[in-house]
Amino acid sequence: MGGDRAPEEIVAGARAARADGIVPVLYGPREVIQPLAPDLEVVDAPQVVGMHEKPADAAREKRDSSLFGACRAVGAGEADVVVSAGNTGAMLAAGLLEIGRLPDVSRPAIAAPLPARRGPSVLIDAGANADARPEHLLQFAYMGTIFAAEILGIDNPSVGLLSIGEEPEKGNRLTREAHALLAANGLRFVGNVEGRLLLEGAADVVVCDGFTGNMALKVLEGTIRSVLDSFREEMVSSRRGKIGGLMIRPAARGLRRRLDPDTYGGGYLLGLKGLAVVAHGNSSRKAIVSAIQLGARGVEHSVVERMAERLSGRAGVAQSA
Amino acid sequence: MGGDRAPEEIVAGARAARADGIVPVLYGPREVIQPLAPDLEVVDAPQVVGMHEKPADAAREKRDSSLFGACRAVGAGEADVVVSAGNTGAMLAAGLLEIGRLPDVSRPAIAAPLPARRGPSVLIDAGANADARPEHLLQFAYMGTIFAAEILGIDNPSVGLLSIGEEPEKGNRLTREAHALLAANGLRFVGNVEGRLLLEGAADVVVCDGFTGNMALKVLEGTIRSVLDSFREEMVSSRRGKIGGLMIRPAARGLRRRLDPDTYGGGYLLGLKGLAVVAHGNSSRKAIVSAIQLGARGVEHSVVERMAERLSGRAGVAQSA
Repeated sequence: MGGDRAPEEIVAGARAARADGIVPVLYGPREVIQPLAPDLEVVDAPQVVGMHEKPADAAREKRDSSLFGACRAVGAGEADVVVSAGNTGAMLAAGLLEIGRLPDVSRPAIAAPLPARRGPSVLIDAGANADARPEHLLQFAYMGTIFAAEILGIDNPSVGLLSIGEEPEKGNRLTREAHALLAANGLRFVGNVEGRLLLEGAADVVVCDGFTGNMALKVLEGTIRSVLDSFREEMVSSRRGKIGGLMIRPAARGLRRRLDPDTYGGGYLLGLKGLAVVAHGNSSRKAIVSAIQLGARGVEHSVVERMAERLSGRAGVAQSA
Repeated sequence: MGGDRAPEEIVAGARAARADGIVPVLYGPREVIQPLAPDLEVVDAPQVVGMHEKPADAAREKRDSSLFGACRAVGAGEADVVVSAGNTGAMLAAGLLEIGRLPDVSRPAIAAPLPARRGPSVLIDAGANADARPEHLLQFAYMGTIFAAEILGIDNPSVGLLSIGEEPEKGNRLTREAHALLAANGLRFVGNVEGRLLLEGAADVVVCDGFTGNMALKVLEGTIRSVLDSFREEMVSSRRGKIGGLMIRPAARGLRRRLDPDTYGGGYLLGLKGLAVVAHGNSSRKAIVSAIQLGARGVEHSVVERMAERLSGRAGVAQSA
């Protein structure tokens, strides 16, 4: 029931994602969901968490919602991964309450794949922690490194700190303090990276607080859309442009495919004892298919188990920080 | 001497900007500058502030630099506006020391025009204050409102707070506190605006701290460049795309013109007793021409005087905050 286009697009995406090894189970009010998906298992969850509902309120009053129910299934081992396009804050609350934090993690974070020109990279935190401390950024860097290695298949991933200048002292208080921590803790740290290089691929893992990451991601997506829309507008304003536009259509399609948020679908909420995928709030069925496939890939690669293993070696760091 | 392409491009831009009512005066080592500009007045300033030099060091050791010299001329009333593509932090220090703050302003801020689709808007602070408090954001909103009214010619400009969700409680600690202040102080406040709408035009004045603003601006510019470059790459990879590319060239040129940072040149450093324009570090001669013209426009519209007048009515607000 989560997301701006629920339940129709979510259910349609789940049906389309069904494959060998992917068995979608839908959580939501049975009388609404089952008719849309006669061929899928539906677990009745009568409540719905609104997109703008406060996480604390949802945690108190909406434990019988699709969001909390689906997370509970992962916590109980009945499902391998939960995918939701719903309220991100409520998802974080549900993840913490129903799945639980990994012992060495103080703050779960969202790892979002970026469609960089040089090949994919990962932005972490893309929005779970609007206020974060330097030691949280260090944990995000570890989690992002594991994501990049396991899911993106990058050997010895580089880590950059998202800031507003390349020199260590450029940035705000948080980035200056985090810079020192990141440099001193066994990561392949390449220093500060600037926002202008996000889409080029400045580092395999780009670390920041959730406010900055979510902002950067939204500016990025909005700008891509705005540039492509403006381009189309300019083209159709002349006969010559229209014909040219038809001729470049295959090229434009290739570009749209790479840059379309629907292609990469969503990010992982990392740092929990189970796997959770946060899809875009306005996810289409196509985006939901991608998000479910992303989830399945995480299960295949045992992302949570690897996260637990590798972070346990870092417990000292995390706790001392 | 400031900027990545100094002195050649800066001097060339100054020469090209000369017009009725615009008399560029160049500050820099005379033996370097005068040969490049035999037709312009040069004031000898032997020192150079490096692009990565710490502002405090520059303030202590480089008072005879082109940057500090040009600001001093504005402070002394010998020049109407200073334009620099140099070190932004040093520019802020030079502005504070040589020009001085307006009495009702606690922190000067950079107001950068945004080439939004709906028409230009202004982002403030675009990078002067990496760490800011809610009351600073309120002052930025007042300054941005004056900029939008005087320079962009917008009647009763709307003010939005750059955050990661539309609801007042979405954001970090700073935006949540600033939201309440902005709502209660006589501005035409339209609430939070999201980064994805920056290039569409969500509000006439978009307010944020300097870290967030600089980040958003760099992501915006980098994404525009990256999308247009990728588009070109996709097109030239096929014969059909190449021909189509030729046909859409006029359309592409129109778009590039609107979105090219060189077109809008730079931003004002607002809140000082004199006018200062901060141009892009990698400004070309064309960008310098735009920056000088922006400066001239500010002088014509008496931006500083109007800022002083209108903010003096807000002194209570600024001081109580």
